[in-house]
Amino acid sequence: MSPFARVAVLGLGLVGGSLARLLAARGIDVVGQDVDPASVAEASVAGLSATGSVAEAVAGADLVVLAVPLRAMRSTAAELARSVASTADATLTDVGSVKGPVRQAMEAAGLGERYVGAHPMAGTEQSGFAASSAELMHRAPWAVTVPGAGGSIAPERLERLLRLVTGPLGGTAAVLTDEVHDEAAALISHVPHVLATQLLNAVAGAPVRDAALRLAAGSFRDGTRVAFTDPSRTEAMVTENAAWVTPALRKAVRDLEALVAALETNAPVHDFFHAADELRALGRPGERTASAEVLSVPLTGDWPSTLAARCATGAVVVSLTDTEALLAR
Amino acid sequence: MSPFARVAVLGLGLVGGSLARLLAARGIDVVGQDVDPASVAEASVAGLSATGSVAEAVAGADLVVLAVPLRAMRSTAAELARSVASTADATLTDVGSVKGPVRQAMEAAGLGERYVGAHPMAGTEQSGFAASSAELMHRAPWAVTVPGAGGSIAPERLERLLRLVTGPLGGTAAVLTDEVHDEAAALISHVPHVLATQLLNAVAGAPVRDAALRLAAGSFRDGTRVAFTDPSRTEAMVTENAAWVTPALRKAVRDLEALVAALETNAPVHDFFHAADELRALGRPGERTASAEVLSVPLTGDWPSTLAARCATGAVVVSLTDTEALLAR
Repeated sequence: MSPFARVAVLGLGLVGGSLARLLAARGIDVVGQDVDPASVAEASVAGLSATGSVAEAVAGADLVVLAVPLRAMRSTAAELARSVASTADATLTDVGSVKGPVRQAMEAAGLGERYVGAHPMAGTEQSGFAASSAELMHRAPWAVTVPGAGGSIAPERLERLLRLVTGPLGGTAAVLTDEVHDEAAALISHVPHVLATQLLNAVAGAPVRDAALRLAAGSFRDGTRVAFTDPSRTEAMVTENAAWVTPALRKAVRDLEALVAALETNAPVHDFFHAADELRALGRPGERTASAEVLSVPLTGDWPSTLAARCATGAVVVSLTDTEALLAR
Repeated sequence: MSPFARVAVLGLGLVGGSLARLLAARGIDVVGQDVDPASVAEASVAGLSATGSVAEAVAGADLVVLAVPLRAMRSTAAELARSVASTADATLTDVGSVKGPVRQAMEAAGLGERYVGAHPMAGTEQSGFAASSAELMHRAPWAVTVPGAGGSIAPERLERLLRLVTGPLGGTAAVLTDEVHDEAAALISHVPHVLATQLLNAVAGAPVRDAALRLAAGSFRDGTRVAFTDPSRTEAMVTENAAWVTPALRKAVRDLEALVAALETNAPVHDFFHAADELRALGRPGERTASAEVLSVPLTGDWPSTLAARCATGAVVVSLTDTEALLAR
């Protein structure tokens, strides 16, 4: 049973297209929208209901998902604000890779009260509707975000979005404040993209470039994989999340400078290479076996803050009963 | 037809074990050696001839491959020097990931005249004989190294090693000076290992560590993959090649500092993200289609230097006829 009767997905790129496909596959009434007529045509050929008009897409929807590029969030929110009265009291969400700036865009458009942030952890090197698939989004781990201390939140909107993510979409949801999300995203996504870009740039400009590319094997291929994704998208992610990316990069600079200084003076470098041994022993992300531990949080009182506190320590919402959220670690 | 009648492989870890398995699978007489009795036992169970004694392993061999950890190269070379008279005028090579320091170790042991450097670009996250396989080494791209200007070289030893690599082992060989190899290896392997380690360290020490690990998806997984390999081995690679790693890390520091400064002042960051667009357009390493261009270099005169010059611009030796080396780009 879907918690939303009709979903509008604004933006039919890789993520928006995949989400629209998955919603449709789950029997949910979904309308896709894109400013690019080619994407609308491709979506129609794929059997989706699609339009070029935001007003048309959102009319009657009770969930609107902004799946446009980060740079278009502000203008899309403004356009959405003009049509929002025609929706069925729609909850608004997005799939952007940074959350604080998107909330600001929604608030600037007067839509903050309806907004719950979201970020599905799914992607490939590719982009565009042609690369989209329901499979990409199925069972994805999501971050679902709430404002930090002092922010207002509509618990019933959050609850319905969590029911969608953990129900028909088959995913899990880490409920986090925008700040925790954006700091974490800097560390596990934006800084990795910057370092991959730097690696590729360094080889591109090296006198031994051609020999280096010939020898390049696993560590370079993996270390630069995301540098081969759309650099404009990477630039937008990094720029939008500059507040969290810059301190993480400053730390990288300090760490690398200290390592260089040690290497040049034959000082010990053991600690740099072994600092994460404890984490290393747990295995690579994705290879860890989930613990059987299950927490339950009643959907009463300030339960959103309780969820955010639990999820900040690594728990995720796996399902909702009528009265409580079940979390796993 | 093997260019060597009997090969000794000193060190039966992942790379040495895989090489010994591949040589045996090609019908070449091979004896493995390891200081660890467990590795010797495992190799015997796998059907290889194996011993704990260097003297025993190298007796009668006409090729000796040092496949020991970098930190053990110097002591193994010294031990080998005591037995080298019992070999069939053996050519000496290695599979270490840095080449200048290994040549120095061989020269220090009085073995420089017999030595040709080698580095197969093959590995996994795992280590030890148990993880070895002939498949890992089969068709690997190799670097085969010669001393830079002023160094002496035995062309007939180089020729036989190239015949082994491009013949029975099914690989290709980039003939490079130690310096070009080590600078390239810093860029495409050692610096990527350092950056992966820094990423993992940063998350391990972050206040949002647990939430970050929950959200970690492709870019973090790929960006830290090699940080999950043996950190002591990474430390050894980086330390041994510090001469080339430190300038590359200094460049990384400068690039990241410039990016941070631009982000903090809203200055354009386009150039950082697009500097490698030309390289990006060529596709990821390993996905490029080989050009049909074939060069041939006659095995006369100072052909090793000619090969090194060709390979420095991205060519690799793919086979040797009786009179010439054939290279592809």
